[in-house]
Amino acid sequence: MTNILPVLDRASADIPASLERLFELVRIKSISTDPAFKADCRRAAEWLVKELRSLGFDATVRDTPGHPMVVAHHEGAKADAPHVLFYGHYDVQPVDPLNLWDHDPFDPAVREVEGGRRIITGRGTSDDKGQLLTFVEACRAYKETVGALPCRVTILFEGEEESGSPSLKPFLEANAAELTADFALVCDTSMWDADTPAISAGLRGLVGEEIVVKAADRDLHSGYFGGAAANPIHILADVLAGLHDETGRVTLPGFYDGVEETPTQIKAAWEKLGSSAESFLGEIGLSIPSGEKGRSVLELTWARPTAEVNGITGGYTGEGFKTVIAAEASAKVSFRLVGKQDPAKIRDAFRAYVRAKIPADCSVSFHAHGGSPAIQLPYDSALLGKAKDALSDEWPKPAVVIGMGGSIPIVGDFQKMLGMESLLVGFALSDDRIHSPNEKYDLRSFEKGIRSWVRILAALAAR
Amino acid sequence: MTNILPVLDRASADIPASLERLFELVRIKSISTDPAFKADCRRAAEWLVKELRSLGFDATVRDTPGHPMVVAHHEGAKADAPHVLFYGHYDVQPVDPLNLWDHDPFDPAVREVEGGRRIITGRGTSDDKGQLLTFVEACRAYKETVGALPCRVTILFEGEEESGSPSLKPFLEANAAELTADFALVCDTSMWDADTPAISAGLRGLVGEEIVVKAADRDLHSGYFGGAAANPIHILADVLAGLHDETGRVTLPGFYDGVEETPTQIKAAWEKLGSSAESFLGEIGLSIPSGEKGRSVLELTWARPTAEVNGITGGYTGEGFKTVIAAEASAKVSFRLVGKQDPAKIRDAFRAYVRAKIPADCSVSFHAHGGSPAIQLPYDSALLGKAKDALSDEWPKPAVVIGMGGSIPIVGDFQKMLGMESLLVGFALSDDRIHSPNEKYDLRSFEKGIRSWVRILAALAAR
Repeated sequence: MTNILPVLDRASADIPASLERLFELVRIKSISTDPAFKADCRRAAEWLVKELRSLGFDATVRDTPGHPMVVAHHEGAKADAPHVLFYGHYDVQPVDPLNLWDHDPFDPAVREVEGGRRIITGRGTSDDKGQLLTFVEACRAYKETVGALPCRVTILFEGEEESGSPSLKPFLEANAAELTADFALVCDTSMWDADTPAISAGLRGLVGEEIVVKAADRDLHSGYFGGAAANPIHILADVLAGLHDETGRVTLPGFYDGVEETPTQIKAAWEKLGSSAESFLGEIGLSIPSGEKGRSVLELTWARPTAEVNGITGGYTGEGFKTVIAAEASAKVSFRLVGKQDPAKIRDAFRAYVRAKIPADCSVSFHAHGGSPAIQLPYDSALLGKAKDALSDEWPKPAVVIGMGGSIPIVGDFQKMLGMESLLVGFALSDDRIHSPNEKYDLRSFEKGIRSWVRILAALAAR
Repeated sequence: MTNILPVLDRASADIPASLERLFELVRIKSISTDPAFKADCRRAAEWLVKELRSLGFDATVRDTPGHPMVVAHHEGAKADAPHVLFYGHYDVQPVDPLNLWDHDPFDPAVREVEGGRRIITGRGTSDDKGQLLTFVEACRAYKETVGALPCRVTILFEGEEESGSPSLKPFLEANAAELTADFALVCDTSMWDADTPAISAGLRGLVGEEIVVKAADRDLHSGYFGGAAANPIHILADVLAGLHDETGRVTLPGFYDGVEETPTQIKAAWEKLGSSAESFLGEIGLSIPSGEKGRSVLELTWARPTAEVNGITGGYTGEGFKTVIAAEASAKVSFRLVGKQDPAKIRDAFRAYVRAKIPADCSVSFHAHGGSPAIQLPYDSALLGKAKDALSDEWPKPAVVIGMGGSIPIVGDFQKMLGMESLLVGFALSDDRIHSPNEKYDLRSFEKGIRSWVRILAALAAR
C-alpha cells in the first residue's frame, strides 16, 4: 500500500488553492429547476471538465435533453485495484427567499463564526459542489504527490439532481459500458456529527407529484359566488388534510405495502447515537415529532415513509386582501419511500385518492416530478468495512453506519441499470442549511473530506 | 315635478363625452391594496374633485391616514326635497394575473361583442368607476338642462373600499355633521339581469383574516427532516379543511348565532326569479352548488353565511420541484355574514379554533382585514318604493328587490354612525368579471344607469 502521508500533507497544504477553485464553481449560478439558469448549468459543467483535464482526466461535457453531464476517465496505478465510479452533482437549489440570506448566495467566502469555527458560505457549498470537489482535490493531491491515482477512476457529474434527474436514466442506458465500474462512490450525504463520519447504508426513495385543482373558469368575487361556487383551495385543503390520519400514518390505500419494520438490533444501535427528539428537532426550533406516533426521530427520518406537501399556492397571495374565489389552486407533494415500496404504485394510489375527492364539476391535473425506490446496502459488505476503517483513521470518532432520509435516485439507477452498489460517504453537517437560505459547508468538512478520500482510495486499492 | 324628458335626452346625447370622462378615470391605476399605487389613488381623487367642481359642486380632496376621500356638496332646487348622500369608491382591485387579460386593464375602450352588445373594457369600469360616474353624469344632465339639481346632494367617494376601508369610520366620525343626509344612495351593486334593475335590500357582512402558521425556524430539506418535523402547510390544510362539515356548514362554535331562516314568502319570490343552480353556476363553468346542502343558490349567496379561503401560499411554488418543508405557510380567509352575526365574535371564534389546531412547538399569527355586520333594509320602506317605480320606468322589466352576497361595509357604517338608511341601486351585470381579468361594464348599463339616476332624483324630490 502506498505511503499516503505525503498525499495527506499535500492535500492540507493545498487548501487555499482548493478553496479558490471551490469559490469559482460556487459563483456559477447552476440552478437546474429554473430555465433562466440553463446557460449557467452548462458553464458549471465546462468548468469541471477544464479542471479534470488539468489533472490528466479524459473529460468531456456530454449533452442531454436537459442539462449536460460531465464524464471523465483516469487510469489507476495498480492493475488489480478496483475501478470506481465517483458521482456528484453540480446543480444547486433555487435561492429564494433571497432576503433571508445574510450574504450573496453566489459570492462565497470563508467566514469565522462562534468558537473559531470556519465556514464556507454560499449556495451549493454543501450540496453538492463542496462535496464533489473533496474527491477531485483528493485526486489532485495524488497526482501532484505520486503522479498517479491508486485505482482506476471514472467520474460522473450530473446537472439535474435537484430537478428529478430526467436525463439520467437514458444517459446511463446509452453509456452503460463506459460508466460501469466495480462500484460507485457517491458524495452527497452528511456526517453523523462534526466529529463522527457516517456511511449511509439506507436511502429513502422519492415520488414527486404536482397537482392542480380547477373549479370555475375564472377567478370569482367571493361575495357574489361565495357559498355556492366550488372553491379549489377548499378542495385542495381537504385532499391534503386527508393524507394523514390522527396517528400520523399516510392514508393512501396500499401505501405501506413493502414497508418492513426495522430490525431490533438496528434500532438499538440508533438509540445509542443518542439523538433525542429534543436535540434533533431543537436545532431547527421545534420539539415535538410530527410524524407517526411512537417512533424515534431517527426511525421516522431514516426508516419510515412520509407524505409531505412541499409547496401550495392559490388565490390572492399579495399584500392586503382580495375577496376572491380562485379558479385554481395547486400543490407540490412528495413521498419518501422505504423498503420495497413501489414508486409507480404510490403515484397511482395518490392520483386515485385525489381524483375521488374532486367534485364532478371540477377537475384536477397531475404532473410527475421524479420517482425512485428506496435503497439498502447490506450491513456486512466488504466495501463498507474498508471505507469505515479509512474514515475512522481520519476523524476524531469512529465512523457509524446509518440510514438516510433523503433520496439519491442515482443510487437506485446504478444498482438497477449498471449492477453497481454504491458507497455513500459525505461530509455535510446537519446545520449546513442545504436547500435553505444561508447554506454553508464547514472548512473542516472540506479539508478532512479531501483527506478522507485520499485514505478511502488507498484502502480500496489495497485489496 | 320637473319635466325630466329634456334631462333624459341630454343624458343620452352626452354619452360620447361621458365615456371620454370615464376613460380618463379608468386610466388612473388606483389599486388601493398595493402601496405601489398610492400616488395613483390620489390622482383619481383629484380628478373627481376637478370634475365635480366643473359641475358647481363645492368639492375637496380630504386626506386620511390611507387614501384620500372626496367630499362634495351641491344645493337642491326645492327646499322641501330630501338631502341625499351619494357614495361610490374610486379604488379598484389588483389586476393579476395580468396575462389573462385580453386588453390592457388600464386602457379602456368600447368594444362590440356578440349580438351587437357594446361593452366598456378595463379594470374598474364596473367596480366602481363606471357606476359612480352614472350619478355624476346624471347631475351633469340636470345642470346642463335645468341649471340645478332637484334635491340637495352630498357626495362621498372613498379610495379604500377594496382594502377594507380602514379610514372610513374615523372619517365619518370626524365629519358626521357634514356627511349626514336624509338617506344614502349607494351605487356598487348589480342588475338582476340585463333587462331587470334590482334594489338590494340585504347585504352580507364580511370578516377578513390572514393567518400565518410558523413551524421550524428555517426552510428544511424534506429528506433530512420529513416525517419528524412539523410541516406548516399540513397544519394549515388541516385548519382549512376543518372549517366546513360534510353538509357544507361552517364548524366554528357559535358561527350561526344570529342567523335567521329567510321568511318563506321571500324565498318564494326568489324561486320565481328562476335562477337555478345550472344557470347561476353554468355562467362560470360549474354546475353543483358547493355550500350548505338543500338550499338554492340565491339563498346560499344572499341569505347564508360562508367561510371562504381567498388565498393560500407556502413552500416552493415556482417552476419545477423543491423538496422543502417550509418554515411557514399562510392563508387569507373571509367570512360572509348575515342577520345579526357579530363580526368580532366570528373573528374570535375563528382565532380560537385555529389556535387549538396549532401544535405546541409551532405558532400562528393573525392579521385582521376588515369587519362589518350584515344589513337589511325593511321591505316596506317608502324610499325603496319610489326608487323601484323610477327604475321600472327606465328599464324593459320592473325592478326587483333582492339580496346581495357581497359586503358594502359603508352601508353598515351609515346606519350605525350617521343614522342613515341606504338605497342600493347599481347597474353592473353578473358577467362583468369584477375582481377578475377582463372586467367590463355594458355601455347600456352606463347610459341607462345615468338615466335611472335622473329619474330617481326626480322621484325622491317629489315628496
